[in-house]
Amino acid sequence: MNSIGNNLRLTTFGESHGPAIGGVLDGFPPGMKIDYREIESLMATRRPGGKGVTARKESDRVEFLSGFNEEGLTLGTPIGFIIRNEDKRSEDYEELSGVYRPNHADYTTELRYGLRDYRGGGRASARETACRVVAGALALQYLDTLGIKIDARLLTVGDGPEDESYDSMMDRVEEIHRTGDSVGATVECRVSGIRAGIGNPVYDKLSARLGFAMLSINAVMGFEYGEGFRSAGMKGAVMADEFYVENYSNEIETEEKKSRKIRTKTNHCGGIQGGISNGEEIYMRVAFKPTPTIARELHTVTTEFEETTICVKGRHDPCVGVRGVAVVRSMAALTIADFMIGYQGLRHVKSGLYE
Amino acid sequence: MNSIGNNLRLTTFGESHGPAIGGVLDGFPPGMKIDYREIESLMATRRPGGKGVTARKESDRVEFLSGFNEEGLTLGTPIGFIIRNEDKRSEDYEELSGVYRPNHADYTTELRYGLRDYRGGGRASARETACRVVAGALALQYLDTLGIKIDARLLTVGDGPEDESYDSMMDRVEEIHRTGDSVGATVECRVSGIRAGIGNPVYDKLSARLGFAMLSINAVMGFEYGEGFRSAGMKGAVMADEFYVENYSNEIETEEKKSRKIRTKTNHCGGIQGGISNGEEIYMRVAFKPTPTIARELHTVTTEFEETTICVKGRHDPCVGVRGVAVVRSMAALTIADFMIGYQGLRHVKSGLYE
Amino acid sequence: MNSIGNNLRLTTFGESHGPAIGGVLDGFPPGMKIDYREIESLMATRRPGGKGVTARKESDRVEFLSGFNEEGLTLGTPIGFIIRNEDKRSEDYEELSGVYRPNHADYTTELRYGLRDYRGGGRASARETACRVVAGALALQYLDTLGIKIDARLLTVGDGPEDESYDSMMDRVEEIHRTGDSVGATVECRVSGIRAGIGNPVYDKLSARLGFAMLSINAVMGFEYGEGFRSAGMKGAVMADEFYVENYSNEIETEEKKSRKIRTKTNHCGGIQGGISNGEEIYMRVAFKPTPTIARELHTVTTEFEETTICVKGRHDPCVGVRGVAVVRSMAALTIADFMIGYQGLRHVKSGLYE
Amino acid sequence: MNSIGNNLRLTTFGESHGPAIGGVLDGFPPGMKIDYREIESLMATRRPGGKGVTARKESDRVEFLSGFNEEGLTLGTPIGFIIRNEDKRSEDYEELSGVYRPNHADYTTELRYGLRDYRGGGRASARETACRVVAGALALQYLDTLGIKIDARLLTVGDGPEDESYDSMMDRVEEIHRTGDSVGATVECRVSGIRAGIGNPVYDKLSARLGFAMLSINAVMGFEYGEGFRSAGMKGAVMADEFYVENYSNEIETEEKKSRKIRTKTNHCGGIQGGISNGEEIYMRVAFKPTPTIARELHTVTTEFEETTICVKGRHDPCVGVRGVAVVRSMAALTIADFMIGYQGLRHVKSGLYE
Repeated sequence: MNSIGNNLRLTTFGESHGPAIGGVLDGFPPGMKIDYREIESLMATRRPGGKGVTARKESDRVEFLSGFNEEGLTLGTPIGFIIRNEDKRSEDYEELSGVYRPNHADYTTELRYGLRDYRGGGRASARETACRVVAGALALQYLDTLGIKIDARLLTVGDGPEDESYDSMMDRVEEIHRTGDSVGATVECRVSGIRAGIGNPVYDKLSARLGFAMLSINAVMGFEYGEGFRSAGMKGAVMADEFYVENYSNEIETEEKKSRKIRTKTNHCGGIQGGISNGEEIYMRVAFKPTPTIARELHTVTTEFEETTICVKGRHDPCVGVRGVAVVRSMAALTIADFMIGYQGLRHVKSGLYE
Repeated sequence: MNSIGNNLRLTTFGESHGPAIGGVLDGFPPGMKIDYREIESLMATRRPGGKGVTARKESDRVEFLSGFNEEGLTLGTPIGFIIRNEDKRSEDYEELSGVYRPNHADYTTELRYGLRDYRGGGRASARETACRVVAGALALQYLDTLGIKIDARLLTVGDGPEDESYDSMMDRVEEIHRTGDSVGATVECRVSGIRAGIGNPVYDKLSARLGFAMLSINAVMGFEYGEGFRSAGMKGAVMADEFYVENYSNEIETEEKKSRKIRTKTNHCGGIQGGISNGEEIYMRVAFKPTPTIARELHTVTTEFEETTICVKGRHDPCVGVRGVAVVRSMAALTIADFMIGYQGLRHVKSGLYE
Repeated sequence: MNSIGNNLRLTTFGESHGPAIGGVLDGFPPGMKIDYREIESLMATRRPGGKGVTARKESDRVEFLSGFNEEGLTLGTPIGFIIRNEDKRSEDYEELSGVYRPNHADYTTELRYGLRDYRGGGRASARETACRVVAGALALQYLDTLGIKIDARLLTVGDGPEDESYDSMMDRVEEIHRTGDSVGATVECRVSGIRAGIGNPVYDKLSARLGFAMLSINAVMGFEYGEGFRSAGMKGAVMADEFYVENYSNEIETEEKKSRKIRTKTNHCGGIQGGISNGEEIYMRVAFKPTPTIARELHTVTTEFEETTICVKGRHDPCVGVRGVAVVRSMAALTIADFMIGYQGLRHVKSGLYE
Repeated sequence: MNSIGNNLRLTTFGESHGPAIGGVLDGFPPGMKIDYREIESLMATRRPGGKGVTARKESDRVEFLSGFNEEGLTLGTPIGFIIRNEDKRSEDYEELSGVYRPNHADYTTELRYGLRDYRGGGRASARETACRVVAGALALQYLDTLGIKIDARLLTVGDGPEDESYDSMMDRVEEIHRTGDSVGATVECRVSGIRAGIGNPVYDKLSARLGFAMLSINAVMGFEYGEGFRSAGMKGAVMADEFYVENYSNEIETEEKKSRKIRTKTNHCGGIQGGISNGEEIYMRVAFKPTPTIARELHTVTTEFEETTICVKGRHDPCVGVRGVAVVRSMAALTIADFMIGYQGLRHVKSGLYE
């Protein structure tokens, strides 16, 4: 099913080369004033064009169709939105109708559905992620009212180190692009200001849901939080996040206050213990594989079972991780917001219970 | 919610130190003859006792309460089962009632629920995974009827290399155990015999669901499939899995046959493209952190907000990844079986449509 | 959540007086050629205008945004569609901003969300049902490929008898309309050609799901299937649906064939036994209350807690059941299609398994 | 799937003639002290034996396996429970292995699953409802902390009027029982003390969810709330529930207080407007068909497709509606509790937010 989330649920639709893509964000709290410029701003970081990203030009203008009243306040009803597809150049894809592009979802989609839309990647196209960013931008604004901030950044590109500058990373991407090749990347995401006690102890762990959200992004091959794969090489005495009391006072009365006082000296576990937030910063890393489309001749097979070679021209990102930053941030926001709405219950954002 | 799966859904219950743990496996295909020895056999690999695992003695006898007819055939109705808790030694935990163990879910559980069962880890205890293995063993037998095999193995322990022998890994675990410390591990899992076309292109990707299932296991900090995090350092030309035709013949008529003929020369993508299986082997890796319980004095905080130190005695695994192998295998089986039942539809296992 | 269905899921959005309403139909089988005129035709029976229905003029042109390839075949991907709101006349509603209309959802919506869109009924408007009819029309075409037919008809209007002619019923509606009043109605729905074995024995009964779908329609106050409420007054010996064998032959080999041979002499149970279809015709009845909006002065309360009276002008149906016929038929189609897709599994409509 | 509910989810398992039946109630609020005598007391009203109900003797002792701490407080974790099957007398059913009982789910179950447990009704047995009553009794206690009361009563038996005494109804049942026949019944259920604003405007209406829950009960053929089917015969001017202000004061500040002040003069809509509670009493009616098992010879068909007759002896209720009262009350409690937990969010029952 093309939906994600329980209390806050995003459903998306649209082929990359059909009339439009769009989404429905259901369960968004009522009574919120949305800043559309922030949506535009997050969309801009994901939009094609610019260094290191595909040349396809899309204004990606989001048209909101529902969910707001005349004053622009959210109604608590589903927020429907569409983005028209422009600059489609379906003819670029004409020659791809009879052949499966290696590393793409062409072959698996055809096996899954019995047919596919060969113009672009259909649902498998990264264009679908534009809808995630629209919804993510809304979720970020909701989380902001709770004091929760989410940021993401490009951590590494290819074999570069973690402390490389963004410009340096972009230069490497450009260089690789010029050779007709593509490259993988890692993206880091951090969630601060989240209270302790959010999540679940068994299947629906906060960590498992974040991982699911990230692994649902195109080209993502791995997810880790806290020390992640490094923890597999560590000993328990090193990994231990010891507790201490911050600003202890005798006036502690409520669970809410209590949650702010107990801290850990280190944060190897990435802010999540037993699937539930402990009030420390949540941090995670996501691995993106290189963009599958490259300007190289590759062996492949036709839909008639004949071996052939292919060299896809089209316009594509040399490093899908660059635009993936906004998508990672959005998916984290949607996931955390989903848990927060479950925690807060069915309430108006101004009812005094959202603080 | 304490459930996982859509078409095949496991719901578990039980605190580690209550009367019993148990589960309900709903959606299991009717008409299957179950081999109980195989369940017992998989359970044995996860059971406490033996090298590298906790000394808690549990026979872990599974009592099936429903879902089978008198001849032992599955009825298609929910399979309910319980495992009585024995050798609980709750007194070991008495002293833990007023203190939060570092790295455990004690603190987060109390924040989440307002109270907790301090005898053992409650729902956060690894004991819950026994129920996953019961259900996983059933799923493995169902998958076997479809020609799908799932295996898992301990890949690394601590800073050891990937090609270390099992005995050598166990020796290292024992050695670390003697120092009162614990150690992390990675587990590898492989799925073979799965046809192409299983999965979904957007949120509910096969890869995302496998990741969710693995990250729902206690102590798991990371998940990757195919080249995983290595792919972030790779170039597209290297990562490319080119297609070829295996055993091409003119007698290809059905989708089913078609799926067996197109192959990839390499398998960097781990058998999943665009969230859907491509017919190659699916492989993945899971990172387990070191067992949090260690025989070291650690700083922590009491439930009354006073700083203190703790040295948990109890009986615990020095390397939770060792027993995690059976759990990883089980979670993979439950996830793949869930997709296969969705693919096959609502049918009796002997109806001729399960081939 | 604004979604219904498991395997075939409809999500709708849109306020009656916002830019547009729309929906996403997810899980629809791939490879189907859709007849758009049939959608238009079903929409026409639900459209405002004409005898017995509101004068609001809407072309209700459905714009499909996704889910079809260039030849008009369904792709198995989500079918997104929108219907622009025209002829809104929001000014008609201006005076309603500060008052709760009796029998409407104004007051309950405001309590639920903390605010409401006073222009029209927002999500509570019957306009939302246009999206159900679009989706229902698609479901009907899918069911047609399986030999399943669904029909619905106006059974009674007000205190009229069951065997009244449609024209006579419309005359009564017009007459009541002229007095400024409104009237209730019952709608009957029949499903033929469904094979035995569809449904579930416990919570997710076919009957319970049909009831849920019908009770989710605006103004519906009751649902019954088979003898329904009459069965409460009956004895077991009368209610008994005895079995017999139709066209018995020795060549019965498959479950499929078997299902066609056993029949019941009577059909008091309405084609559903123990929550599962028995192969006989499924029939059900739905009760619609009178349209709440009437041209009478009614006592009510302002949003400032002052008592007042109101006489809503607007343009409204005197008998919501008239247009409800298409909605009942659509909801039955969506529910049955959901079960059939679960029964058939994840398949292309032309794969030979849909027979 | 054998589950019902979203925030509070009951999953049940168990064949009527297997080792045990049982359930898992997930999502129940933590910190509640349960009165087990009240569970026992509700169970007693559903138990076989006594006037008008089957002679099968079952102590129906509920064994709770999880979800409580040592002081008997709920932990917020899944509450697992089992009821052993006693006095099974499977031999009574031996002769039924090769024949389909008319009006039972024997035939449909076999078509659905390809096999069935002929000893008793398997999952279709009314015995499953014992688990609903256990869970319902817990839900009732939770609702009691919110000031919500739910009651149910036998309204009519057969062709008797609504104002008949219970004893008189039981006499009629006995009389019919003596003739070897059975009879239908209606059950009424009332929910008082529920605040306004609970429910949803579109698919997941409070009314639709109540209807779904009731129609999921064995032998239920119809559901209506408020005026129900009578509303189909009414005019809008009669059906109108006009608003008035009760105890108006200037000190109204919060939504919570507001909800208590606006009332309706009549309650034709049964406390639900647009799928959302309006603060008035919710009332509904459920139709039970006559028990299908009667001491009469009926025509039926063998599993080998030969026509035959059957006269089931066994021990059965002459009027399933009698024991259905406790089940109706339980299903209403589970449904309302589900909505209230969604409304309140993820909280401890003593956190001050459950008032």
